[in-house]
Amino acid sequence: MLVIEDLQDTLRTELPVTLHLGIQVVSLDPEHVTLAAPLAANHNHAGSAFAGSLNAIATLAGWSWMWALLRAHDVLARVVIQDSSITYERPVTSDFQATCRSPDAGSVSRLLAALQRRGRGRLTLHVQVSDQAGPAVNFRGRYVAQRP
Amino acid sequence: MLVIEDLQDTLRTELPVTLHLGIQVVSLDPEHVTLAAPLAANHNHAGSAFAGSLNAIATLAGWSWMWALLRAHDVLARVVIQDSSITYERPVTSDFQATCRSPDAGSVSRLLAALQRRGRGRLTLHVQVSDQAGPAVNFRGRYVAQRP
Repeated sequence: MLVIEDLQDTLRTELPVTLHLGIQVVSLDPEHVTLAAPLAANHNHAGSAFAGSLNAIATLAGWSWMWALLRAHDVLARVVIQDSSITYERPVTSDFQATCRSPDAGSVSRLLAALQRRGRGRLTLHVQVSDQAGPAVNFRGRYVAQRP
Repeated sequence: MLVIEDLQDTLRTELPVTLHLGIQVVSLDPEHVTLAAPLAANHNHAGSAFAGSLNAIATLAGWSWMWALLRAHDVLARVVIQDSSITYERPVTSDFQATCRSPDAGSVSRLLAALQRRGRGRLTLHVQVSDQAGPAVNFRGRYVAQRP
C-alpha cells in the first residue's frame, strides 16, 4: 500500500534540502504523484518562484513516482536521474504544485522487465508544475533504477 | 568593476534559497563566474549531491554570468531563464563548483545589440559542475534579459 507519510518521511530524512524548500506530498496513487511548495520559501529577485526550486520539485516528483512504482511492485532498487530538460513557460507567482503522471503502460512494463532481467532499467517521465493560475513549467526527466 | 561581494549580496538578498544551499561566489571576471557549495547541505539518499541542488547552482552560475555581463556594460535589465537541459554524468561525491564561461563574442554582441534596439535579448550559456574528482555535470541554459 502506498502511504503519503512514508514518502514524506523518505524525502525528509534522505533529501534534507526538501525541508528548506518546504516540499510536501499532496497525493500519491498508482496514477500520479503531486508535491507542493510555498512561494514564500522559494521566491527570486522578481518575487516569483526561483527556477532552481521549480526544477528541484519537478525532479523530486518524478523520483517520487519511481519510488512509488517500485514499492507497489515490491522491487528494491535505487533511483537516480540521468538527464532532464525544463521549460519555464511563465513566472510562477503563487504557491505551486508538481504532478508526475503515469507514463504509457508499455514503458513501465519494459522498465520492470529490465530490472528483473538485468538489475537495471530506465524510464522517461513528464512533470508539470502549476500555480494557482494553471500550468507554468514543463519538465522531462530520464530516471535510472538499479537493484543492489 | 566587478566585485565578488556585490554578487554574493545580490544572491543572498534576492535569492534566499541560496543561503540554504550554502552557495558562495568563488571567482568573477569577464571570462567566467564560479560558484561553490558544500556537499553536506545538499546530499541525497545515496550520500552524493541532490540533482536539484546541482541544477540550482548551474542555473545560478549562468544567471550570475549574465548579471556580471550587464553590469560590466552598464545595462540595467532583468534576467530570467527560459529553458535548460542538464546531464548528470556521474554522482557528485564531494564539495562542488559550477563554472560558466564566456560564450563566443558574436552571441554576446548580438545580445547587447538586441537589448539596445528592442529592450530584450536572449543568450545560451553552458555551465560545468565539478567536484574534487573533476567534471560531473553538464548544463545548458537559455537566458532572457529584459530592460525595464
